[in-house]
Amino acid sequence: MQGTVSVLTQIKEDAVATPVDRLVAATAPDMARVNELILSRAQSHVDMVPELARYLIDSGGKRLRPMLTVASAMLFGKGTGNAINFAAAVEFMHNATLLHDDVVDESDMRRGKPAARMIWGNKASILVGDFLLGQAFMMMVETGDIVSLGVLSSASAVMAEGEVLQLAKTGDVSTSPADYSEVIRAKTAVLFEAACQVGAISGGADTAGRQALSQYGLELGIAFQLVDDVLDYGGQAGTLGKNTGDDLREGKMTLPVILALAEGTAEERETITTALGDPDATADQVSAVVAIMNRYRALSRTLDQARVHARAAQRALEALPASDMQTLLADVVEYSVSRAY
Amino acid sequence: MQGTVSVLTQIKEDAVATPVDRLVAATAPDMARVNELILSRAQSHVDMVPELARYLIDSGGKRLRPMLTVASAMLFGKGTGNAINFAAAVEFMHNATLLHDDVVDESDMRRGKPAARMIWGNKASILVGDFLLGQAFMMMVETGDIVSLGVLSSASAVMAEGEVLQLAKTGDVSTSPADYSEVIRAKTAVLFEAACQVGAISGGADTAGRQALSQYGLELGIAFQLVDDVLDYGGQAGTLGKNTGDDLREGKMTLPVILALAEGTAEERETITTALGDPDATADQVSAVVAIMNRYRALSRTLDQARVHARAAQRALEALPASDMQTLLADVVEYSVSRAY
Repeated sequence: MQGTVSVLTQIKEDAVATPVDRLVAATAPDMARVNELILSRAQSHVDMVPELARYLIDSGGKRLRPMLTVASAMLFGKGTGNAINFAAAVEFMHNATLLHDDVVDESDMRRGKPAARMIWGNKASILVGDFLLGQAFMMMVETGDIVSLGVLSSASAVMAEGEVLQLAKTGDVSTSPADYSEVIRAKTAVLFEAACQVGAISGGADTAGRQALSQYGLELGIAFQLVDDVLDYGGQAGTLGKNTGDDLREGKMTLPVILALAEGTAEERETITTALGDPDATADQVSAVVAIMNRYRALSRTLDQARVHARAAQRALEALPASDMQTLLADVVEYSVSRAY
Repeated sequence: MQGTVSVLTQIKEDAVATPVDRLVAATAPDMARVNELILSRAQSHVDMVPELARYLIDSGGKRLRPMLTVASAMLFGKGTGNAINFAAAVEFMHNATLLHDDVVDESDMRRGKPAARMIWGNKASILVGDFLLGQAFMMMVETGDIVSLGVLSSASAVMAEGEVLQLAKTGDVSTSPADYSEVIRAKTAVLFEAACQVGAISGGADTAGRQALSQYGLELGIAFQLVDDVLDYGGQAGTLGKNTGDDLREGKMTLPVILALAEGTAEERETITTALGDPDATADQVSAVVAIMNRYRALSRTLDQARVHARAAQRALEALPASDMQTLLADVVEYSVSRAY
C-alpha cells in the first residue's frame, strides 16, 4: 500500500495526468498480475482460441472494469488475493460480451481495429466468447468465494437479459426512457456494479462498504453508458467523426433518439425514423438527425442525466473513510463524464 | 428410495420398456422437480427470453443429461438436494450449447421442429444462450458446492474449446481419428462426465464412487456421440432419412468420413470431398458417399468403437456395490448403442 500511496502522490503532482491515468498508475502492480493471468487463461491447445482471444485482449482498451475491481479491493485492503482472479474474470466476461455483441450488431470495427468476427468469422466469435465465459467462471471458482460467485453469475444472466431487451427494442419508436434505463442498467451498469462489489469483498469490506462500492459501480456504469450514447452522436457538440451515428444505423433506441422523437415535429420524426435502423444512412442523414437532437437539447439533456448518476456514484463513496483511493475513485467519475465535452 | 425401487421393479416386469423408459420412470419424482426448476429459471421480464427458452425446453428431447445427474445421485443416496439444481443447470448448459450450435451450423431444424434461430433469429439465439448459461451458474452457486461448480465451469470452457476445434477442422480432409476423438470428448463427453460426477457428489459418493461415475459419464458420452455420428449417415444399415448427410453437407469431419477418406481410392475420395461441406449436396451424392462408407465398413467400424467405450462405461460401474440403479445405468449404455441398428 505504501508504494501505491507514494505513486498516487507523485502522479497527483503531475497536473496533466487524468484521473484514469492516475488510476492506472495506482493499480499498476496488481494489474500486471491481472494481465499475466488474463494471458495465461486465454491459452488453449486449440490454436484459434488464443489467436482470437489475444487479438481482442491485446487491442485492450483501458481495462476499466478490472481496474475498478482491483481499486475497490485496495480501498479496503489490498488489491492482491482474490481480487486478481475476479478482475481477470470480469475482463473475460466483458470480452465475451464484446465478441457476442459484435456478431449481434454486425459491427465491422472494435477499438479502431477490424472486429474479431471480420477476421475469424461469426462462428468463432460466438464460440470463443463461450470459452472466455467458461474460463471466467473457472477463475472465480478457484477463489472459493461463493458470495462473489453469486454476484458475478447473476450479473452474467442480467447482462444477457439486457442485450435481449435492447435487441427487442431495436428500431421500436415507442421505446420509453424507462425502457432505456432498464437496458443500460442491465447491459452495462450491472457489470460495473459487480466488478466493484467483488473487489470490495476481496478487500475485506464490511456490509456497508460492500453496499457503498456496489452503488458506486452501478451509478458509474449508468453514467458511463449515457456518455457513450452521447459520444455516438459526436458528443455534446455533435462533432461528426467516422463512427458517428453507428447506433442510429443499428436502430439502437438510446436516450438522445428517444428524447428527439418525443419532442420533434412530425417532419422531424420522419427524418429520424427514415435513418433509424438503415445501415446505409448517409453522413448527411446523421447530420440532420444530430441537428434535430441539438434543437431539443437531446444530447445535453442526456449528459445532464449522466451527471446526476455521476454525483450519485460520488455520494456513495462519501460514507467511507477518507483516503487517496477514495478521492481517486471520485475523480474517475468526474472524468468519465467529461469525456463527452 | 423405496418408492423408486418399487417403480423399478414394476417397470422391469414390463418387457417392452426400454432401459431409457425405465430410467425415466425411476427418476420421475426428482425429474418433476428438475422440470419445475427449469421452467421457473427460464422466466424473465424480457418477454423474448422465456418465449425462446420455453420453445426449446418444451421441445424437450429425452433430458438424458439431467436424468443422469439425478440417477447418479440416487445411486449413492437421494436424487433430491443439490442434485436438483445441478440437473437443471446441466440442462441449461446443454440448451445454451444447442442454441449457439444451431447458429454456428446454420441448422434449420432441431428435434423435428424449426430451430429457434429460424423463428427468433440468430441474434436472439446467441443472447438467450448466454442468459441460460448465466442462469445455470446461478443455480450452481445456490448449492454452495464449490467442488461441483469447478467441475461444471471447467466443462463449460472445454465444451467451447471442442466446438472451436470442430469448427477449425470443418472440411479439413487431413483431420485424424485422434483429432476427432478430441472433438467428441470435449464437445459432448465432458458434459456427460460432469453431469454424472456432480450427481455422484450430490448423492454423497466417496472419491472412488465419484471417479467411477465420472468415468462412466465420459465413456457413455463418447459412445453416444459415435452413435450419433453413425446415425447421421442412416445408422449401420445406411438407411437414408430426411436428415441423412447433414454432417456431410456441413463439412463435419466425423469418424465415418475420416475412415472412408483414409481407405478410399482417389476417385472415391473425390466423390466424398465434392459433397463434403456443400450445403446443396443431393441425396444421390449422400447415397454415393454412404456406399463408399459401407464398402470400407466405416459405419460399422465406428459402431465397434462405440461398443468399446460402452463396455468401458459399464466396467466403471462394476467397482460399485450392486443395486437396481447400477444395473439400470449399465442397461442404459447398452441401449444407447443399440439406437444405431
